[in-house]
Amino acid sequence: MSQYHPLNETEAISIAKSLNHIFTSDSELVCQEIGDGNLNLVFHVTQPSSGKGIIVKQALPYAKVVGESWPLTLDRARIESEALQTEGKLAPGLVPEVYLFDATLALTVMEDLSDHVIMRRGLIEGGVYPKFAQHISTFLARTLFYTSDLGMNQQEKKALVRNFSNPELCKITEDLIFDHPYADIDTNNYDDHLKEDMRKLWSDEKLHLEVARLREKFLTHAQALLHGDLHTGSIFITPESTKVIDPEFAFVGPMGFDIGAVIANLLLNYASQEHWSSSDVTRHERRSYLLNLIHEIWTLFNDKFRKLWDENGVDRISRTPGYQADYMQRLLQDTVGFAGCKIVRRIGGLAHVADIDKIPDANTRAKAQRAALAIGTTLIKQHRTITSIEQVIAIAEETTR
Amino acid sequence: MSQYHPLNETEAISIAKSLNHIFTSDSELVCQEIGDGNLNLVFHVTQPSSGKGIIVKQALPYAKVVGESWPLTLDRARIESEALQTEGKLAPGLVPEVYLFDATLALTVMEDLSDHVIMRRGLIEGGVYPKFAQHISTFLARTLFYTSDLGMNQQEKKALVRNFSNPELCKITEDLIFDHPYADIDTNNYDDHLKEDMRKLWSDEKLHLEVARLREKFLTHAQALLHGDLHTGSIFITPESTKVIDPEFAFVGPMGFDIGAVIANLLLNYASQEHWSSSDVTRHERRSYLLNLIHEIWTLFNDKFRKLWDENGVDRISRTPGYQADYMQRLLQDTVGFAGCKIVRRIGGLAHVADIDKIPDANTRAKAQRAALAIGTTLIKQHRTITSIEQVIAIAEETTR
Repeated sequence: MSQYHPLNETEAISIAKSLNHIFTSDSELVCQEIGDGNLNLVFHVTQPSSGKGIIVKQALPYAKVVGESWPLTLDRARIESEALQTEGKLAPGLVPEVYLFDATLALTVMEDLSDHVIMRRGLIEGGVYPKFAQHISTFLARTLFYTSDLGMNQQEKKALVRNFSNPELCKITEDLIFDHPYADIDTNNYDDHLKEDMRKLWSDEKLHLEVARLREKFLTHAQALLHGDLHTGSIFITPESTKVIDPEFAFVGPMGFDIGAVIANLLLNYASQEHWSSSDVTRHERRSYLLNLIHEIWTLFNDKFRKLWDENGVDRISRTPGYQADYMQRLLQDTVGFAGCKIVRRIGGLAHVADIDKIPDANTRAKAQRAALAIGTTLIKQHRTITSIEQVIAIAEETTR
Repeated sequence: MSQYHPLNETEAISIAKSLNHIFTSDSELVCQEIGDGNLNLVFHVTQPSSGKGIIVKQALPYAKVVGESWPLTLDRARIESEALQTEGKLAPGLVPEVYLFDATLALTVMEDLSDHVIMRRGLIEGGVYPKFAQHISTFLARTLFYTSDLGMNQQEKKALVRNFSNPELCKITEDLIFDHPYADIDTNNYDDHLKEDMRKLWSDEKLHLEVARLREKFLTHAQALLHGDLHTGSIFITPESTKVIDPEFAFVGPMGFDIGAVIANLLLNYASQEHWSSSDVTRHERRSYLLNLIHEIWTLFNDKFRKLWDENGVDRISRTPGYQADYMQRLLQDTVGFAGCKIVRRIGGLAHVADIDKIPDANTRAKAQRAALAIGTTLIKQHRTITSIEQVIAIAEETTR
């Protein structure tokens, strides 16, 4: 196609028309830009007569955060598109279908999911998703197993590492998750009433040592192809369907980072339930729903991953007696540690979550924030001694008793 | 230059003449092919009148081992040449200087080191190298520190990982070190008198579990640029000088794999001292020389690495209190585990070491082999509990008491 330039709505429509298995060239299409304009343009192109639609997502050559703008590689569009395709092959139906990728325009055309809602919003509104644990555990087990040295030829795995080398976006994660929240950094963003809590966070050396270890793992442990940013804002959902979107942070890293992201965001919603009065039955119902969900996700993931391993492990060494149990325990510990980091950064770091930030009353919000911080820091500090998902549940319950 | 083809001696001479900072075009040069013909051609080109010389090393497109021949990427010549140049910048004087690299011919022209001997041979002949511990600890500390996330910008590190992706040669290591020695595989090569020892090795599940963990680390832990094959046959030495050669197995992996290789090969020589009668003072002298050397290498490495870290660490997180001590202890444990694997493969695997294989008397050889096996398997099994180099020394002493 042409040189890179940000598309307008007319161009998005003409790209849509070129996909002749979806629209015909004489289709009447309408287009709306629905992105937030910080990192990407997102065009929703629809045909009112048939109800059909597609998404045209284009990477912008910069990132805008808190008013600042810095250059950001367009290669992330290739990474996102290729990650979606890899994930789609491994976990069919659990990511949007990719119809077209254009490297020059840094643009991916994909399945329209506007019948889904963003899971974060769904959870905030009290949604219940009876199939989510099954879906996300399948997504995690299959994408992680088959892109690891357990389920993939080790030489192809090394090509995968090369292909998904993602230095710029990994650097963002490294700074925002493993560095800035633990020091008094300008870009941190926290409510004034948390000033004392932040001071404690910044001076907690026992915590910092565990975070340094987890950051090292994030930097060096090339275990499997990760989504890289698997919070509930990267999941489109309905009671029947789950679609994991936006893998532009994909890279080959430690599996626990993805699993931990899912659990962390469920725990952030758990902490946000402070907004119900303690006598309100909804608070307890939601909390127990969320903890059961976490339990179910890890349990299902563990079962599915082990089954894939037993049936499709690529080599003899992976069947060494005791190795699988040892591996799964270390994976749970990584998961817990990364979950803790993902929680803390949403309270003390730059980017927050609506689950908590949208609580209008400052006192209630402070309670939720402190609950989240307590869960997050406890998970980080205890992660290397965790041996069961029940211990994670107990930590969440105890810190909010 | 021209298309790839194996060079002859005349061509090697004409390449030498083109290096006009060493020879002139009218120099009278002689050439001898001195490689073993298994993996590479090695031409030694000299000018008898001046005594000057160079080495022309060319990769062959196949590997020959025990009569079989299989294709092997020529890209390893690029990796070797670039690794030598990276190491040469970080550890000046400790690798041969590279004069020329030609990608098409898979050829590196480098410094002539024929005044040095291969360290394995030097040790077998009873050599003493008073500067070796200083040299190799500097080599290890500087090459490992400055190519890790501790001493290198993390985004450049990711480019380094990509550049030194070395799937084929890593696969050879993976098979020969972490897989084959632990099962009854055809290509294993061991003396008949070791049959029972091998059966024990093949059925020792506790050992296998530790090897599986170390193999996983080898496959996934992208910690620093390694030499990748740092045994005493990859070191040219004199009492005054140390030159590390042949980094064609270079890749970004766990640091302990390189440090462990050095220690393992000193321990193999240690085990080979069985060939002196137990009353011979030489046996005790050599053993104590070797154990002191190991102690000195780790101690100096540890000091130098920490000093580099303190003075040149690239980020705040690396200065987290307690992190360095924790990191160095894990590094020692990795080193010990990998050293154990490197010892065992030299007794039960395909490729052996002359230190032990050249012991003519079968009974004496068996003693040395069993001493090596005992040291190697103990290091592997205990590596995760090791906290000091003295414990490694004690293991060597106890298994040969």
